[in-house]
This record gives sequence, C-alpha cells and structure tokens, in this order.
Amino acid sequence: MEFKDRIDDISIRHRDDSKEPFEPLVVMQFSSKTNQAAVTWMIAKLQASKQNGGANLQVRTMVMPHNSETVLYIGASSHRLILAGELLEIKKLTLDGHYKEISIHDLQSFQGSGNDPKTFFNNSEKQKIIKHEIEGIRAQAMDSNIPGYEKIRLYPGKSIIKKYLSRGLVLQLYPLHDEEEIKRLGDEWYNYKKVFNPQPIDKIRNYFGEKIAVYFAFLGVYTIALIPPALIGIIYLITAWKSVYREAIFAIFNLIWSTLLLEGWKRYCSEISFKWGTLENVGTSFEEPRANYRGELGRNIVTGNPEPVYPKWKRLAKFYFVTVPVISLCLCAAFFVMLLYFWMQAWADKAYIDSGHSYFYLPVLYTPSGIYAVMIAVVNAIYRLIARELNDWENHRLESSYNNHFIVKLVLFDFVNCFMSLFYVAFYLQNRTLLRSHLACLLIASQLMGQIQEAMVPFFFFKRREKQLSKAITMVEELKPLDDKAEEIDKGVLKRSIVEGSMSVYDSTNNDYLELFLQFGYVFLFSSAFPLAALWALLNNVTEIRCDAFKMCRVSQRPFAESASSIGAWQVAFEVIGLMSVITNTALIGMDPTVQALLPSDISAVNMVIIFVIVEHCVLVIKGAVAIFIPDIPKWVELEIARKEYRTKQALQAEVCTSFYL
Amino acid sequence: MEFKDRIDDISIRHRDDSKEPFEPLVVMQFSSKTNQAAVTWMIAKLQASKQNGGANLQVRTMVMPHNSETVLYIGASSHRLILAGELLEIKKLTLDGHYKEISIHDLQSFQGSGNDPKTFFNNSEKQKIIKHEIEGIRAQAMDSNIPGYEKIRLYPGKSIIKKYLSRGLVLQLYPLHDEEEIKRLGDEWYNYKKVFNPQPIDKIRNYFGEKIAVYFAFLGVYTIALIPPALIGIIYLITAWKSVYREAIFAIFNLIWSTLLLEGWKRYCSEISFKWGTLENVGTSFEEPRANYRGELGRNIVTGNPEPVYPKWKRLAKFYFVTVPVISLCLCAAFFVMLLYFWMQAWADKAYIDSGHSYFYLPVLYTPSGIYAVMIAVVNAIYRLIARELNDWENHRLESSYNNHFIVKLVLFDFVNCFMSLFYVAFYLQNRTLLRSHLACLLIASQLMGQIQEAMVPFFFFKRREKQLSKAITMVEELKPLDDKAEEIDKGVLKRSIVEGSMSVYDSTNNDYLELFLQFGYVFLFSSAFPLAALWALLNNVTEIRCDAFKMCRVSQRPFAESASSIGAWQVAFEVIGLMSVITNTALIGMDPTVQALLPSDISAVNMVIIFVIVEHCVLVIKGAVAIFIPDIPKWVELEIARKEYRTKQALQAEVCTSFYL
Repeated sequence: MEFKDRIDDISIRHRDDSKEPFEPLVVMQFSSKTNQAAVTWMIAKLQASKQNGGANLQVRTMVMPHNSETVLYIGASSHRLILAGELLEIKKLTLDGHYKEISIHDLQSFQGSGNDPKTFFNNSEKQKIIKHEIEGIRAQAMDSNIPGYEKIRLYPGKSIIKKYLSRGLVLQLYPLHDEEEIKRLGDEWYNYKKVFNPQPIDKIRNYFGEKIAVYFAFLGVYTIALIPPALIGIIYLITAWKSVYREAIFAIFNLIWSTLLLEGWKRYCSEISFKWGTLENVGTSFEEPRANYRGELGRNIVTGNPEPVYPKWKRLAKFYFVTVPVISLCLCAAFFVMLLYFWMQAWADKAYIDSGHSYFYLPVLYTPSGIYAVMIAVVNAIYRLIARELNDWENHRLESSYNNHFIVKLVLFDFVNCFMSLFYVAFYLQNRTLLRSHLACLLIASQLMGQIQEAMVPFFFFKRREKQLSKAITMVEELKPLDDKAEEIDKGVLKRSIVEGSMSVYDSTNNDYLELFLQFGYVFLFSSAFPLAALWALLNNVTEIRCDAFKMCRVSQRPFAESASSIGAWQVAFEVIGLMSVITNTALIGMDPTVQALLPSDISAVNMVIIFVIVEHCVLVIKGAVAIFIPDIPKWVELEIARKEYRTKQALQAEVCTSFYL
Repeated sequence: MEFKDRIDDISIRHRDDSKEPFEPLVVMQFSSKTNQAAVTWMIAKLQASKQNGGANLQVRTMVMPHNSETVLYIGASSHRLILAGELLEIKKLTLDGHYKEISIHDLQSFQGSGNDPKTFFNNSEKQKIIKHEIEGIRAQAMDSNIPGYEKIRLYPGKSIIKKYLSRGLVLQLYPLHDEEEIKRLGDEWYNYKKVFNPQPIDKIRNYFGEKIAVYFAFLGVYTIALIPPALIGIIYLITAWKSVYREAIFAIFNLIWSTLLLEGWKRYCSEISFKWGTLENVGTSFEEPRANYRGELGRNIVTGNPEPVYPKWKRLAKFYFVTVPVISLCLCAAFFVMLLYFWMQAWADKAYIDSGHSYFYLPVLYTPSGIYAVMIAVVNAIYRLIARELNDWENHRLESSYNNHFIVKLVLFDFVNCFMSLFYVAFYLQNRTLLRSHLACLLIASQLMGQIQEAMVPFFFFKRREKQLSKAITMVEELKPLDDKAEEIDKGVLKRSIVEGSMSVYDSTNNDYLELFLQFGYVFLFSSAFPLAALWALLNNVTEIRCDAFKMCRVSQRPFAESASSIGAWQVAFEVIGLMSVITNTALIGMDPTVQALLPSDISAVNMVIIFVIVEHCVLVIKGAVAIFIPDIPKWVELEIARKEYRTKQALQAEVCTSFYL
C-alpha cells in the first residue's frame, strides 16, 4: 500500500497533536460495496498535510463485521481547528463583548477559551470546520480518477468528498450528537413543564447553528404574535357581538398586525444575528458549485479554477420550455381537483336536500370535504416529487439559487392548491358562510395531518430507536478497529454513532417554513371571514414548537451547523401574503352588504367600488410606509456597528499620524 | 504676535515641502469686519502640524486694499496630500485596472502618477482633500473661544472653519477653477458643434466630482430615453391615426418604458460608480454634525467626542406640531390657488361664450392660464423659502438627513402645486380636452420659465463677468501680499480668483433634479392624454444639458467635488411617479368611453370598474416584477467585485498556509 508510508510520515510530523486525546466529531460511512482502494485513498487524503493536498485531520478507522462497511471517525487537533477557523474568518466574541475574526496569536482576548485551545470552539463549530476542511480536499493535477474506479473521473480542483457522496461511495457524512449537551438543551427546550417558557435560542444556535436557530426564533415570534388576534377571536366567539363593524375592525387590525409582525421580526432577527456575529456576514460571490452540478469541464470566471460549466441558455431553455409548462399543468390539475370538489359538494348538497335532510345522508354531505383534504395532500406530495426532479434537472450552479428556485416552486403550487378554493368561494361563489366553513375545514384538516406526521412519526421512531440501541450494542462488540489507534474510541460513542447513522436526516428548514407559510395565509388572507383561525393556529404552534424541538434533539441525525442572518426568501413569501391580504380583505368587506348599507344610499354602485378601491390603495400605501419607516435594524445595533467601525478607523489614523509626524 | 514664531518653526520643519512651487488650490475669503486676531489664529491653525491640532497646509496671505479684506490662498505639499489621501482611504486605479486604497509606500502601482507625487492627484482631488483637512481642524481643550470674539464659544472637537463660516467671519471657502482644464472640458461638453455627442462624463467627474457627474449622466440617459416616446408622439401627430387603441398603446408603452428607464439608469449608474471606485463606498455611520447644528454640549454616542446634542423629541415635536401643519397649510393654499384658477377659467369661458366668441374676448380666455402659471411660480418661490426655513429650524444633525427632509418637502409641495390641477381636470371634471390643453400649457410654460432662468441669466452673468475681469485687473495691481512668499502667486491666478469669488455659487443638484422630476411627472403621469409631452421635454432637455454645462463651467464658482454613487432620494421620487402613473393611466383609459365600448356590452358598470382595477393590479405586479428581476448591478460589475474579493482571500490563505506549514 503506497499511501501507508505517507500516512505514517505525516503522523510523525504532527506528533504534538497526538498528545491530545482523540475526539471523534464527524463520521464518514462508506458503502459496503466501495472498492478498498477508494477507501484507503480517502483516508490518506484526510490525513495528508494541506500542502500535499490533504486536510490534515485525525482519522480512526472501523470496519463493520457483518457487511465489511468501513466507518471513519474524524477529529482534529485543536491547533489545526483554530488555524482553519482563522482561514474561514470565523468571528467570536472578544472579552470586551465585540465580534472579531479569530487569530491563533490572540486566543486569550476571546471569551470562553480561558486560554485553552481545546475548549476554544464548541462542538458544533468544530464539526462545521471539519466539514469545511473535508469538502476542501480537492483533486490534484495527477488525480485523474478515484482509485478503483476508472470511470469516476476527477479534474484538478474538484472537491473529492462531493464526488464520493454523489456517486454513493460514501453513504453519509454526519456530525455526532453531544449526549450531555443535547440532554441539557432538551430539558430547557421541549420539556413539557416548560411549554410556556421562551425557547433557549442562544443554546439552540450553539448546538444546531444559526440557520435552525433562526427558524425556531421565527416560529416563536410568530406564535407569540398570534396571541392578540386569537384573543380577539375568543372575544368575538364569547360575546357573539354582532355588528357591521365587527369584521372590518378585525380585518384592519390583522392588516396592521401582520405588517408589524413581519417588520418586527426583521428587527428582532437582526438583533439576534448581531449578537451571533452573522449580521455583517456577506455571502461570498465565488461560492462553490453544488455537488450535483453537471457540465463540461471549463473554468470559473471569477477564480479561474477548473470547474464544470453549464451554458446559461440551456438552463433558461429548460426553465421556460419544460419547467414553466409542467408547473402550469400542475397548477391546472390542482385547479381541476378544486372544481371537482365543488361539483361533488354541489351534488352532495343536492342529494342531502333531496333526501329531506335525512340523517342517513349526512355522511354524504361531508364526504367531498374529506376527499378534497386528502386529495390536496396527495396532489401536494406528487407535486413535491415533480418539483424536486425539475429543480435537480435545471442544474443550478449554486446551492442558494437551487434553494430559492425550489422555494418558489413550492410556494406557487401550494398557494394554488391550498388557497385557490378559498378565492373561488369568496369571489366567484361569493358565499360567506361556505367560505367560513371551508376555511375552517382546510385549516384544521391541514393542521391535524401535520400534527400526525410530526408528533406520531417521531414517537414511533423514538420507540424504534430503543430496539436499534440494543442491536447497536451487539454490533459494537463485533466492530473491528482497523488500526490500534481506533481502539481508543469510547464504546459508548461507537454505539451512539451507529444509532445516529440510522436516524432520519433533517432535510432542511424549507418544509417547516412552508407549513408556517400556509398557516399564515389561512389566518390572514380571509381573516374577516373566520376570526377564530388565529386561535387554531396558535394552539397548533404551541405544540408544534415542542414537537419540532423533540424531533431535532432525539429523532433526527445531527445536522451540520449552517450560518444564516435571516429567513431569506421566506420573508418575501410572507410579505407577499401580507400584501395580498390587503386586497382580499378590502374586497371581502366591500362585498359585505351590511357594510355597503353604511354608505349613503344615493351612492351609485360604481362609485361604491371606486371608494373601496381608493381605500385599498390607501391601505397599501400605509402598509408600504410602515414597512419603510420601521428600520430593519434596531438603533442600538446600528450604534454598536458604528462604534466598532469608528474604533478601527481611529486606530488607523493614530498609526499613520504618529509614523509620519504629521 | 505669538503665533508668528510657531508658523516659522513649522515652516522650517517642513523645509522639504518648500522645494515645490506653491500651487494655490483653495481660497478662503474673510469678511472685512473680521477681527485680525481671528484671522491670524486661523492662519496659524492652517499651518500648524496635525499633532499640534493644525492642518499642516501651505498658506499665502493677501489683503484687499479697498476694504482690507484678508484672502488666503491655500495649497499643500504633494507629500502632505498623499498622506491625507491615505487617511481618507481614497481609492485610485492601480496599473492593473482595479481600485485600491492609496498608500504612500506604493505610489508606483497606481495609474497616472508615473512615480511623480505632484501629479498623483488631479486638481479636484487635491481641493477635496484640502477642504477635508481644513474642516478637520478642531478646537483643542485650551481653545474656549475664537480669539477676538469672547462670545463665539468653542468646545473641544468642534470644527473651527464651520464656526467661522456659520458666524460669517469667513465669507466663503472655494476651490479655484483650472483655466486650461475647464477650457478643454467646455470644448467637449457645451460646444454647439457637439450638441449630439455624448457628454464627457468621465472628464466631468474628474473636474467636478461624482455628485455632479452623476446628475449629468442621469440627465443624459433620461434625455436619450425620451426619444422613443417623442417619436411615437410625432407619428401620432403626423398620421393623425385615430383609433381606440391609440392612447392605450401609448400609455402601456410609457408604463413599461418608465420602468425600464429607471431600472436601466440604476444599472448604468452602478457601472459608472464602479468605474469611479465609488460603488462600494459605504457612508460612515459616524458622520460629523452639520455646520449649523445647534444644541447643548454633550457627547457623541458613537465616537464619545464632545459635540452639540439636540434631543430627538424636540426635533420630532417641531416636525409634527409645526412642520406638518405649516406644510399642510401650504398644500391647502396651493389647492386653493388651483380652485381659484378653475373658477376664473369658468368665468372667462362664460364671458367668451357670452360675447359670442368675440375676438376681443380671446385674451380674456387665456388670462387665467397665464395668471395661474405665474401664480404657480410665485407660490413655489415663497414655499421654497418657508421650506428652507423650516428645514433649518428642525435642526437635523446630519447633512444627509437635512438634505432628504428638504427633498421630501420640495417634492410633496411641488407635486400638489404642479400636478393637482391635472388630477382635478382628469378625475373630477373628467374633461379630456381640457386635460390635454392644460397639460400642454403647464409643461410648456414651466419649461419656458426654466429656460429663461437658466439660459438668459447665465448669459447676462457672462457679460457682467467681462466687466468684473477688467475691474479685477485693477484690483490685483493694488492687492497687497502680507508675506513675501505670497508674491510668488501668479497675477493671472489672483485675477481669476477674485472674479471667481464674486461668481454665483452652484447651490446643489437638488434644483436641477426637481425640475426633471416635475417634467417626468408631466410626461408620464397623463401620457395617454398628451402624447406630444415627451417631444417637448426632449427638445427642452437637449438645450438644458448644454446650458447647465455652460453654467457649470463659466458662470458658477467651482464647487468642491463630492462623491456619490447614485441619485439618492431622487430615485425614490421618480419611482413613486412611475407607480402613480400606472394608476392615473389605467384610470384615464378606463374612463375613456371609446375603450369602454370595446368590452362586451352586457357587462355591468360595476364589473367594468372591477376589470380595470384588476388590470391595474396586474400592471403594478408586472412593474414590480420587472423592477425586481432586472438586477441593479450589471453582471460584469459583480464579477469584477467578486474577482477582487477572491484575489484578496487567496493571498491571505496562501500566507497563512505557508507560514504554518499546514
């Protein structure tokens, strides 16, 4: 084995690292079918020095006895981690409370390290750095293919792990949970005794990274914001106060409230991002292409490095000539399903009435709604598959644009699939009673199905996990360490790593945001028709937060921490719903005969419409003004940023002035 | 004179500077009433080293014989300028075509310098730096008041020149024109032979700075963009093609065109700002307070330096309890003037008809329009005074917020004053013929008045200038240099400096933008009513560009160069007009009986209105989508920025990797 020597050579040169006990942080699981040459090559690359094209990491190798799968446990010396963190320009809090890019020469000025490089980073930071380093292992000029696989070609600069993953040589690469930390986090987060406590957002961020913490922060803020409209809904329910103003007042309150909610969220989000040091992070414009990005080998126009190049016109052609027609077709299909429902409903209504309101026919009356709710779910599931396929096939270069295109596809379809029937009832049939019952039916059905999916499935998985654990214990006993160093890994860690490897993967926050998006639409789009919607949503979300938390901590594989400073494209999606709700609500109120009766009776129908149009425009302008005049970044955050800038500038000025005797 | 010694001391320490010939760049003109002690103190401060709280500049002193006014000619050694530029973080083009912050150690890597520090900066850059350095002279702890003025108190950190200017001790501080440069620039810019050539924007920027160059670039782009609608106007005029679609087509074209114009401008503007290195400049958040900012002495919350502090609630109280009511009153007054006009017009119409359409009564018919046009101008002038006073009195801390509040005040009032009558005719009277003639009348009258102001007044000034020149010649002969060094200044420069001192000051680009804003409104708000508007505007602007150019080069004092990367708040103002024009034009078309006749006759009036409202909403959405999907920064600019970022990052990575043998 030619690499063996190299590995030894490297481990000698880095002997000082071996003084620290090995801490397994990330697990790389190979397929049992992977050629041994490819496995050995990867191990060599992981351990080789950076200057030799490796990642300079610590690796312990295990082999599963029953199917001879190789499992790597990957760690790194703290010295290595800090240097990598410096290159990644990771910012950490200094002792005087500011974020600064870390530097190996200056560890003592940062919080929490206490001068001990081992505790300088927390677990999730270490895992994030290791992931980045593994992804940074690139094919060299002499690496034309993966050893053992003549056909899996490489080109200089290609990330090797991405090739291993996309070709299935590596089944998964996942960070290990920290048993103690997760217990402590879970106790604060999803303990049923603490349902009404605020979520431990900072701790969530420390454990799962900013992206997931921002989602839970948003879910929290949004849920709290549902309390006032839910209270109003309860008051309306109890008092049964009948007034022509009743719905108009509620609608106006909701319009203002949804604007304030979204603006307030932006402010809160920039506060927490500032606290986490991610507010001023700007995305790099020379992001790597996605793992599955295909194309002829060319050169990156920014970096000049070799990478696949896919002509833009091809992507646009795919988009306009395939994606747009297919999605339009899907939208039509969803629309047709909706019409089908209304026909069935009309038929059922007729059958019920023809039967002389017989009890026997009552189930017939509710069958269409039930079928429709199921149909929505089915069509949604099918569509999601199609959307995923189309999105993959469009071959987006960047993860971010892939994600944004996927969000747009989801939102567009779900909007039609879930809301179109409401628009149909409200503005075509113009049936207020039906609108109310239909809205209630859709909202409650979708929440019930969501709860079943999210609360039952995890429970089932959790049960299954106990079985897995006992199985894992027997497997660990059989696990064969490939080198003597691998023996130092704790049996408990091995056990847990095997269990975590078989856990479900938390795919992305998109599904969670989509669920909130639909709920937001149900609550605000037709709020004047169904004031109780907010209460239902509130009840749902209170349990949702804790279910999601449990899922994150106990049911899913630990995800790698990702940084984020906002909810991204979802902010736009929620704001669009906010804008549309102005139009729908003014239209609903304008169509209300009791409201119309308030206007002077000599006003013509045309002028009445014009009055409501003017009102709608005014509300839109006010909404816009509110959004503009509430600054997205709170004053104190701006001041802090300015102070930091000023200090930097002053230091520079002083330096130049003294050095030139100006 | 105690300061005399200090000045000598400093001039000895900087003897190497005296090898360069003195170049007078900026003129500081004291009032003839200013106490001599205050003058001497200022001179000492200008010459003292930075560490002694001065500006380390070169000063030559002259005294006007007829009124013993002191005039200072200020320059600086090239070494001093480059150091100041480094502190100001001025960016210049390097030899390989990128913008980089300059550094005195690295002059040879920048374009144009040819290693000669004297030609490293052009004239306007030098003047900008000197202005900055003069403004940077701050009162020290021992400077409690201006010498000779017990009552003009200072506090540590207060900019001294701002106090001199606001108290009238210094009448003006202005940069000198560069006779050769301005001739060359003028030849390319306002030469009547080159009316159809593009403007020399880069040269304008080099001479006048980015802010003025951006204005002229905008004027140029906007004028070119008027050509297509003007052509359509001509075609409509010639062919007299009567069709129900005629106005609808023109309106739709204009809606799209105005959006494309504003989006296209943003792109073009970011291109030129990128070329000038100002695109990535972010405004400092610790900007200095304005010269006239008043308040109790406190501390700046960012820098901790002493500065006046004015409670925010006072400014808000002034704004809400005085400014808002006063401006509302002004708006009402403008509205009343408008009603007056319509009453007069109705009366005149009646008189004309009563007279049996007698020719004798024809002047009576047109009198109200004439009076109204004059009234608009008068009311506008009065309002501008009020707005300026209110804005001063509101006591804004920053120049930028002062400016933005002023723009909002101007735009709001001029909108009502100039456009309200059009809205009245279009939607209250619903008289299309009157709308057309009224629009034509307002547009042409306002342009005529503008042209008179801008073309005639400069011409008059230019004539007067010749007289001034001959007067200046006699004055220069009498001019008494205060020190022997002052004798080295060229007589021609002295002469010109005196003439330039008496020239009118180019106040700001705001007035020019306001004029364009009103024109933009006349052209696009009711475009379906008067297609020829674009042609009139085009004709006006072609001459406007050259008149403004002539004014800038020959009639006004040279302004200090200011940097800018966009047209700022005006972009928003233009976009608001663009949005409103969607509403006005769809309403105009919807109200057109010939268009209404196109719809199926069985449609009810209410549904007709609803159809037009839906169309309007669709147009708004499309407009918004266009604005979002056209990126504000062109692809190539983004790529260049990314490449630069990548190079910086690569260099850092290489450095860390090699230094740690990773």
